[in-house]
Amino acid sequence: MELKYTGKTKNVYKLEDGNYLLQFKDDVTGVDGVFDPGANSVGLTLEGAGRAGLRLTKYFFEILNEKGIPTHYIDANIEDATMTVKPAEVFGKGLEVICRYRAVGSFLRRYGLYAKEGQPLDAFVEVTLKDDLREDPPISEDALDMLGILTKAEYQQLKSLTQQIGNVVKEELAKKGIELYDIKFEFGRVGEDKQIVLIDEISGGNMRAYKDGEYIEPLELEKMFL
Amino acid sequence: MELKYTGKTKNVYKLEDGNYLLQFKDDVTGVDGVFDPGANSVGLTLEGAGRAGLRLTKYFFEILNEKGIPTHYIDANIEDATMTVKPAEVFGKGLEVICRYRAVGSFLRRYGLYAKEGQPLDAFVEVTLKDDLREDPPISEDALDMLGILTKAEYQQLKSLTQQIGNVVKEELAKKGIELYDIKFEFGRVGEDKQIVLIDEISGGNMRAYKDGEYIEPLELEKMFL
Repeated sequence: MELKYTGKTKNVYKLEDGNYLLQFKDDVTGVDGVFDPGANSVGLTLEGAGRAGLRLTKYFFEILNEKGIPTHYIDANIEDATMTVKPAEVFGKGLEVICRYRAVGSFLRRYGLYAKEGQPLDAFVEVTLKDDLREDPPISEDALDMLGILTKAEYQQLKSLTQQIGNVVKEELAKKGIELYDIKFEFGRVGEDKQIVLIDEISGGNMRAYKDGEYIEPLELEKMFL
Repeated sequence: MELKYTGKTKNVYKLEDGNYLLQFKDDVTGVDGVFDPGANSVGLTLEGAGRAGLRLTKYFFEILNEKGIPTHYIDANIEDATMTVKPAEVFGKGLEVICRYRAVGSFLRRYGLYAKEGQPLDAFVEVTLKDDLREDPPISEDALDMLGILTKAEYQQLKSLTQQIGNVVKEELAKKGIELYDIKFEFGRVGEDKQIVLIDEISGGNMRAYKDGEYIEPLELEKMFL
């Protein structure tokens, strides 16, 4: 198999059958050694973070598949920290789609004049460009359409899928007394009909989760949850 | 009359009949002594800038009124550099609405991964919050609605008015061989029926205009145009 891409938290290999293998690494994003799912650089290496992330991802992707919500997931090997997925084409040079249930992080940094810290938000969706150099700028539906990244119909589908998936994760966490504040997803187009599906992962590194008002570290979340 | 507000480029007085008087100042926004319509601080004082801005504003607001596009304009006194306007309520703590015809300024800083400098944009509209502390963050239709700043119906009206007004200014400038790259507007609600109307000004300080590929300074624009 051929190494296609070395990412911040995983490596991507192309398999001989045309599918892809994601190798989860023990690196997580953060700043100055503190984990921050919104950060653009690898902040620290946590022993077992890759497998923990994969366990949660496998758990959620299998629930989504059962519910008929499309993903790129085929199967996962926890021991090897690898996941096999269908080939997907990303939108432009990559987007992140965020679903917010409470005002924290970059939302609060931008809209603090109108929102209080921790204020409930109703599955609010926003899209940011994956562009480290420009600090992942937020982008509107109109701009995505105009720049040829996403059509308006695709945007509506993306938004709807994001809220559906966010709500599934939120409900699953709530069963364990954990509250989801926000979560980020990546999507891609799969197959000849360019179906929009969830790609990448759903793990502690993608979300902010709290229990009794206390933030839960990604590795801790996996232990508490599974 | 009573001073209600001291702004960066104008003072606002309340008149006895309930209308407002805008006093245009000779200060323009910019950074390090260089004019920048997108800047948040007063960069320099230019003798006659107030009157020049008012002359252009009067010119455009009177055209808009003739075309039936609603504004807060009542009349203007060039000698005193004052404009009388209807009382308007701003959206939230103030918004700026930008209409873009070419990719420059903050658009390019955010979306430079997808857009080339000077690339044509089709009357692209975006809204930013007036919030100096947070550097006037862009905000989406969904966020404006969720934060109670603007309803979705109001957003659509705002966007349509912005494109109509932007196109009027663009066509007027084109008659003198001047090309409009981008322009920013402010809107407010007027009267009991909360009609959305254009407020503030339309002057060199609100737009980037070019002639033969050369940027035209605000004061120069007024001289070339009128």
